[in-house]
Amino acid sequence: MSRNSLSRRRFLQASGAAALWLPTSVAGYTAAEMRQFYANGEMSVNVSKWELDTPALCVDLDLLEANLDRMASTMSTNGIASRPHAKTHKCPTIAQMQMDRGSVGICTAKVSEAEAMFQNGIDNILNTTGNVTPTKINRAMNLRQQCPGFIQATDSQDNARLLSEAAVAKGIIADVVVDVDPGIRRTGTPFGQPALQLAQLVDQLPGLNFVGMLCYDAAAQHVVGFETRKAQTLERMVQATDTFEMMKASGLNTEIFSGGGTGTYNIDHDTKGLTDVQVGSYVFMDAQYISIGGEEDNEVYSDFHTSLTIMTTVLNDQYEGKATSDAGAKACTINQPWPIIKGETGMSYRSGSDEFGTITYQEDASRTYKVGEKLEVIVSHCDPVVNLYDQMYAIRGDKVEAVWPISARGMSA
Amino acid sequence: MSRNSLSRRRFLQASGAAALWLPTSVAGYTAAEMRQFYANGEMSVNVSKWELDTPALCVDLDLLEANLDRMASTMSTNGIASRPHAKTHKCPTIAQMQMDRGSVGICTAKVSEAEAMFQNGIDNILNTTGNVTPTKINRAMNLRQQCPGFIQATDSQDNARLLSEAAVAKGIIADVVVDVDPGIRRTGTPFGQPALQLAQLVDQLPGLNFVGMLCYDAAAQHVVGFETRKAQTLERMVQATDTFEMMKASGLNTEIFSGGGTGTYNIDHDTKGLTDVQVGSYVFMDAQYISIGGEEDNEVYSDFHTSLTIMTTVLNDQYEGKATSDAGAKACTINQPWPIIKGETGMSYRSGSDEFGTITYQEDASRTYKVGEKLEVIVSHCDPVVNLYDQMYAIRGDKVEAVWPISARGMSA
Repeated sequence: MSRNSLSRRRFLQASGAAALWLPTSVAGYTAAEMRQFYANGEMSVNVSKWELDTPALCVDLDLLEANLDRMASTMSTNGIASRPHAKTHKCPTIAQMQMDRGSVGICTAKVSEAEAMFQNGIDNILNTTGNVTPTKINRAMNLRQQCPGFIQATDSQDNARLLSEAAVAKGIIADVVVDVDPGIRRTGTPFGQPALQLAQLVDQLPGLNFVGMLCYDAAAQHVVGFETRKAQTLERMVQATDTFEMMKASGLNTEIFSGGGTGTYNIDHDTKGLTDVQVGSYVFMDAQYISIGGEEDNEVYSDFHTSLTIMTTVLNDQYEGKATSDAGAKACTINQPWPIIKGETGMSYRSGSDEFGTITYQEDASRTYKVGEKLEVIVSHCDPVVNLYDQMYAIRGDKVEAVWPISARGMSA
Repeated sequence: MSRNSLSRRRFLQASGAAALWLPTSVAGYTAAEMRQFYANGEMSVNVSKWELDTPALCVDLDLLEANLDRMASTMSTNGIASRPHAKTHKCPTIAQMQMDRGSVGICTAKVSEAEAMFQNGIDNILNTTGNVTPTKINRAMNLRQQCPGFIQATDSQDNARLLSEAAVAKGIIADVVVDVDPGIRRTGTPFGQPALQLAQLVDQLPGLNFVGMLCYDAAAQHVVGFETRKAQTLERMVQATDTFEMMKASGLNTEIFSGGGTGTYNIDHDTKGLTDVQVGSYVFMDAQYISIGGEEDNEVYSDFHTSLTIMTTVLNDQYEGKATSDAGAKACTINQPWPIIKGETGMSYRSGSDEFGTITYQEDASRTYKVGEKLEVIVSHCDPVVNLYDQMYAIRGDKVEAVWPISARGMSA
């Protein structure tokens, strides 16, 4: 894919080299123009990704669809459902693609994210983070009032009581899952008796309907090496399973036992009782995830493709051994490993400067860049990068096929 | 300021402790509600910053105004102008406050940022980054067509020719400064002859009007220790001054020699010929800047106040020695030093997790937090943090006085 893009680009460069100082792109479109084309159904203008004003966030549709398909087929083979986490993409279009492939619902990290998803047609939403203030509890129960498929997580008895009060005040009975801590001590109630007692309280409260539990082991997702990751994940989830069994044995409704993620998607079905996996990053992958290794390749986690990239333009080529581009920390974040230049070798990319990226050439660099030339980098860590952009370009081959609003961008509240 | 806020908060907590599980905030307002109040002129509702839905970006008006005033008076005393960089705040309201205090214009890092400023009433803008693609050159010259006070930087002869062609095509003569590299080798042309020749070319091109040069020593701004910073800055700027003198001697129009920043604001007037300082972070300060030391206090850079904070809510308090809050990397970035909890001692804050902040208590922690309680953190690095939010709350005392749109949020193109 990237080799083809670059070949075409080199062809364009060679064929357009009438004046040495002409940038290689002969046309170009701003974000506003692209939104307009898309809104007017004018994507037949056939814009190449190399013509986009930069920095531009792009998702390769062939790769995205392959990722979605692989996840759906693995889940199906393993006899477990997926409930993908929308905190990764914040994009209702991708959420819908996940639902269309059989996901039982989506997860959201914040109630504002859930609202944005619901306002854009997604109506089966599990909000995995507790809402603890009157404002947030009110928002969550307002959303539940409009969206019967909304499920809220809770991790304390006090919070469950407040949720119930708010639900009763609105005349609804809200579905609730108990968030159980897998040992990270970040959110969630401890497993065993505290979790059981909370579940029983939720079950008894007049405004709430207990539907199960979630236990998301965030720390497990990036454990390097498949076998190590597998062993650790399954060991840590034993107590979650025991807790779920206790809930079941006590006669509670236990239709949901949600957990796991992209790093453990082909491990989680071995956790007894788990009903669905909260996979997120698999849609895009990133420099962080590919370095954890997979079942098939212990060096590179190659189960999914790196579909999410940033197009950036070289601004300065005057200094030996390096070039400066227009995508810095505000366009790439400062997460590490740093972005990876797609299709090239012998060079590195750093986005440590707020406004500028730095390309550093090693002796064996596959090429160098001139001012005005564009390059494509694989993102460092997909979730916070997506959160910087209002839209992403959906690319097929080199062509922009759609402009997708990132409707939950900035929805951290 | 922070002590008062906390006293008031503790008073509220104490007086509102009827039910143990009630969050301390008895009312609360979402971002959308706050925007509505402000748009309708209803700020008389008297919302406290402790009632804001979180995460919320807040600027303390007394501190901001003190920062603006101190900068204006220092510049006046030192006989040099300021041309503040709007990349820091991305907020036209603050740009206007800077202009009202005598700044000769503002700087922008990207043409989209410049457009957002112009669309919101700021009409004296120096865009410090080169625009090198046809799209961007067109955008810049379109802006110049509407805004005669727009000045564009360039750092290469090829680029100057393209700018001139675009200006001629639009029937305008655009003001241009030459960007001279202070030795960072990031953007800019080398000083001496290359800079002079570029200036002469700009002067001769039919569509351009040469108005001077800029030389921004980004690396100097965060040098720790005032005397070290001063010595390095002045030494590195000598060749910029020589270059400016060469331009002057060759008969060029040299009305602008712009450089320097917040870290060197009280040093830059000693650079011979410098006309204005591109100060940015002084409006907000942050954890990064306060650690560089100042002229008066070599440990803490106390010339300006840390006016920019994030309000965050505690989501989980069940685990010994720590608490989890709702402002993680998507609300705070992962820049370090980490955010600083305002008005408290013996505890630290980390925003390394995408969705959650972690408060870690040391043995001598000044307090602990319960679920639903809010805390205020000083931002790590103001520029990229501002870029995450659509609005900032302008706070006087504890009260929200205004809701300012961050009009250039996400404008990295």
